[in-house]
Amino acid sequence: MEGKEEDVKLGANKFGERQPLGTSAQTKDYKEAPPAPFFEPGELKSWSFYRAGIAEFMATFLFLYITVLTVMGVVKAPNKCGTVGIQGIAWAFGGMIFALVYCTAGISGGHINPAVTFGLLLARKLSLTRAIFYIIMQCLGAICGAGVIKGFEKSSTFERLGGGANVVNPGYTKGDGLGAEIIGTFVLVYTVFSATDAKRNARDSHVPILAPLPIGFAVFLVHLATIPITGTGINPARSLGAAIIYNKDHAWDDHWIFWVGPFIGAALAALYHQIVIRAIPFKSRA
Amino acid sequence: MEGKEEDVKLGANKFGERQPLGTSAQTKDYKEAPPAPFFEPGELKSWSFYRAGIAEFMATFLFLYITVLTVMGVVKAPNKCGTVGIQGIAWAFGGMIFALVYCTAGISGGHINPAVTFGLLLARKLSLTRAIFYIIMQCLGAICGAGVIKGFEKSSTFERLGGGANVVNPGYTKGDGLGAEIIGTFVLVYTVFSATDAKRNARDSHVPILAPLPIGFAVFLVHLATIPITGTGINPARSLGAAIIYNKDHAWDDHWIFWVGPFIGAALAALYHQIVIRAIPFKSRA
Amino acid sequence: MEGKEEDVKLGANKFGERQPLGTSAQTKDYKEAPPAPFFEPGELKSWSFYRAGIAEFMATFLFLYITVLTVMGVVKAPNKCGTVGIQGIAWAFGGMIFALVYCTAGISGGHINPAVTFGLLLARKLSLTRAIFYIIMQCLGAICGAGVIKGFEKSSTFERLGGGANVVNPGYTKGDGLGAEIIGTFVLVYTVFSATDAKRNARDSHVPILAPLPIGFAVFLVHLATIPITGTGINPARSLGAAIIYNKDHAWDDHWIFWVGPFIGAALAALYHQIVIRAIPFKSRA
Amino acid sequence: MEGKEEDVKLGANKFGERQPLGTSAQTKDYKEAPPAPFFEPGELKSWSFYRAGIAEFMATFLFLYITVLTVMGVVKAPNKCGTVGIQGIAWAFGGMIFALVYCTAGISGGHINPAVTFGLLLARKLSLTRAIFYIIMQCLGAICGAGVIKGFEKSSTFERLGGGANVVNPGYTKGDGLGAEIIGTFVLVYTVFSATDAKRNARDSHVPILAPLPIGFAVFLVHLATIPITGTGINPARSLGAAIIYNKDHAWDDHWIFWVGPFIGAALAALYHQIVIRAIPFKSRA
Repeated sequence: MEGKEEDVKLGANKFGERQPLGTSAQTKDYKEAPPAPFFEPGELKSWSFYRAGIAEFMATFLFLYITVLTVMGVVKAPNKCGTVGIQGIAWAFGGMIFALVYCTAGISGGHINPAVTFGLLLARKLSLTRAIFYIIMQCLGAICGAGVIKGFEKSSTFERLGGGANVVNPGYTKGDGLGAEIIGTFVLVYTVFSATDAKRNARDSHVPILAPLPIGFAVFLVHLATIPITGTGINPARSLGAAIIYNKDHAWDDHWIFWVGPFIGAALAALYHQIVIRAIPFKSRA
Repeated sequence: MEGKEEDVKLGANKFGERQPLGTSAQTKDYKEAPPAPFFEPGELKSWSFYRAGIAEFMATFLFLYITVLTVMGVVKAPNKCGTVGIQGIAWAFGGMIFALVYCTAGISGGHINPAVTFGLLLARKLSLTRAIFYIIMQCLGAICGAGVIKGFEKSSTFERLGGGANVVNPGYTKGDGLGAEIIGTFVLVYTVFSATDAKRNARDSHVPILAPLPIGFAVFLVHLATIPITGTGINPARSLGAAIIYNKDHAWDDHWIFWVGPFIGAALAALYHQIVIRAIPFKSRA
Repeated sequence: MEGKEEDVKLGANKFGERQPLGTSAQTKDYKEAPPAPFFEPGELKSWSFYRAGIAEFMATFLFLYITVLTVMGVVKAPNKCGTVGIQGIAWAFGGMIFALVYCTAGISGGHINPAVTFGLLLARKLSLTRAIFYIIMQCLGAICGAGVIKGFEKSSTFERLGGGANVVNPGYTKGDGLGAEIIGTFVLVYTVFSATDAKRNARDSHVPILAPLPIGFAVFLVHLATIPITGTGINPARSLGAAIIYNKDHAWDDHWIFWVGPFIGAALAALYHQIVIRAIPFKSRA
Repeated sequence: MEGKEEDVKLGANKFGERQPLGTSAQTKDYKEAPPAPFFEPGELKSWSFYRAGIAEFMATFLFLYITVLTVMGVVKAPNKCGTVGIQGIAWAFGGMIFALVYCTAGISGGHINPAVTFGLLLARKLSLTRAIFYIIMQCLGAICGAGVIKGFEKSSTFERLGGGANVVNPGYTKGDGLGAEIIGTFVLVYTVFSATDAKRNARDSHVPILAPLPIGFAVFLVHLATIPITGTGINPARSLGAAIIYNKDHAWDDHWIFWVGPFIGAALAALYHQIVIRAIPFKSRA
């Protein structure tokens, strides 16, 4: 029974808590995985470690390729009705995350986003070594994905169209952009934590299989809301890849927002999940 | 075998009812949970009670933030083709409910809507104490969510654009608006009851996991249909949050519709489910 | 082992058929349900029979209400970009079928469509008594659903906008319209049979739970393709409800197409599934 | 324990690999299916072999019918806002693949695409006999599906509108088109391999049931991105069917791209999956 939460003793289960919506009662016990060590030397000798990095590279490559190409198609057309539209762009981002998380979850965990890796690192779900390796591979994949598209489009067209780079749009301050990135990334990383919670897994083993759907939807929804403000980053690798290939001053000027914002948002989501939802600091570990 | 329905004796099972579509035969017995008491004093001493309230606050905050921001982006643009469009607004509302119900179902039941809380209270699925606490937290979350957006947009822009507040649109009477809110909320709460039915859970334990999808779709569909009439409320917290931040007379004039309508719709759905579908009044309890 | 198909002996299993995509090998045996009798007198005395009829009425009522209201909102606007668009109409039809099949599958089988009921009757999945009762309730529900909308809209507006009634559009012959209805209904009923196949259920018990999603998608897809031709019927109750409330000659002139087409399509799908896919006529019943 | 991967010994499991996202730990052992023989003479005598071919024919027929009809509806309208739009076309392609893979996965494996069949052949998941039979049936189905639509539309209209045939659009080189087809098909076939991985099946038996959803989404996403470049083939049967019915020189000039591109993409995905993800060449088979 160790690992059960303290609040059980405070009345919730004693008085028979009901689950009015969406969950069967917790019947199976669960065991919190121990925090990942910062350095796991054995990892560096295993093929599965490098395979995971390659999978992150490939997934981020495909993510940038499909999404930036979709952005190009919409931006280029004089009449937006003859394109998939801004909503189509949001589907491209969210849908790719759904499909890629589904495909790579079993190989690398399916992060495809340095902010997600950072949030999971704070929650001690993976080692620092692995986190750094993932973030490097994600950034390299993103640069290659955006680069392929520059090859398809004429270089002048690519630059005129903005290259899918994230900037704070006219009418909004840098503070608005930073706030939008923080809350947007919070929505995503909060969904990631909720969908992959060990407690939830213990209760019902199918949840991890369904997890890619709400995670993809979270990305879709944040894009619906914040494309008018910043084009929506919430993924530093995606912002970096587009910025490097586009490589214009005004994209670099705002670039810090798309690293600082997502990392703050991910940290807040990790805090919210570990402290409020899981109440880990208050658990008796005896 | 207690708890089985009376109609079993009237021929349905005797003659071997077939399920032509969608369900395996009911093989497991199920037990109706006893009605929740109105006051559960123990609740107030448990962390899980307050955590549930915080989760409702956070979910409604994120719900208003994403949806009202999406509305702003569409309303602001002179050419709707350069936005995610009205359909994108409907996706924002439905998609957020899907993602948030998925994330919070295991913590608070994932209501995110006073009308849902009210319907489940009528069906005695949660205590009155908890229902009032949830509704207060939902309203506070909604006000904060709409408030953050006012911070992003210039104040004059926000007011010119209507602030996402619900009003009965020109060409429709207040009666039309009330009717649309009643039927729309009926669709939502009917789906909630169907998706979380104890009888269904007994038959197949995966259903609760899938429940967020049809619930989110129900919200999406009602928005597709009734945005032209009222902007679609079916969630008094969402209407209140937008109205308080917008704070103009014409939004307050219609505001009662977005409380009375959803509560009537939720009550009708609770009645329909408990009396027609579950036939609870006619069961032999011996 | 009775009930196993003859072709097993012809080599498929002897040589170890592989499932290259999407299915685990069939490990559990399954038993074909015996064909439903044409008349099941006991049914008429059970509450579950009448409850199923009420559920079909309510589902078809809500189906027409949401979908025709969505159509009205799109048709009324001078600029389609300010509406959910034709794609939004397709989502309304497909999404409602998804949500309603999910909600009513366990109560009535979730037909919500006389063509589906007819196809399942041909496959002997329900009694003739029940089929007739369902079709009557579906038509009544559809009439009420369309009627409520006429109450919302001004009567002259409603008529000018076509009232959501199905007609063959200019540029297409009645033969084109009939063909489109036949193939469209084939797609839907073929999906229904595939999703609810007893053989599939035996192999994997979760399928019925997932069935509403492909069924809803099938409706969505047929609408994407054939709205320009007939407005898409593939559901005689939906066509009848809209036609009765609209009640203009040109809707009645084409009305037979929306009964004959769907019934032929449903019959072809039933034949295809029973003869080609299940090979029922060729099975040894010894 | 035979069949376990070599890397297990290299540290991954020894140091307790964590799954930060999306998968329960691998607890069940799995057995790699032996490679399919090139010729399986028994197949030709089984009904299930011919049934699979009929199912592939029917699925590809319905796929072309729905998708090309959707394309026609959009292309024909002078104002794209009054249609389902380019995004609606992408939904038609992706949605049909979702529904049809769901329906036919248990019958034929649900390929509906010669490139998928080719990729699975390279991975030795089906015999050469079966692969050739499938590809022929897919092409015949596609030709019939496109042909029915030519019957609906006036012949001159059909030709003016391009008949849904794939060509490289102005502003792009043939190299761009070929590249887009290669990467697009890679995305699709990579998703197919990931979704139907034997290792994944062993870990969690529900995955095959969910597989049609990410596969359909992959098709949808590639269409969002590459409709502006080539109209998106990634399915040689679809391209062939449309080209034969359209039958104009400029469609035939580019036609090789829509066979060579998808086959290269499928081969790369098969290589990536077998070598990088599954590390099959490096396994100890002792």
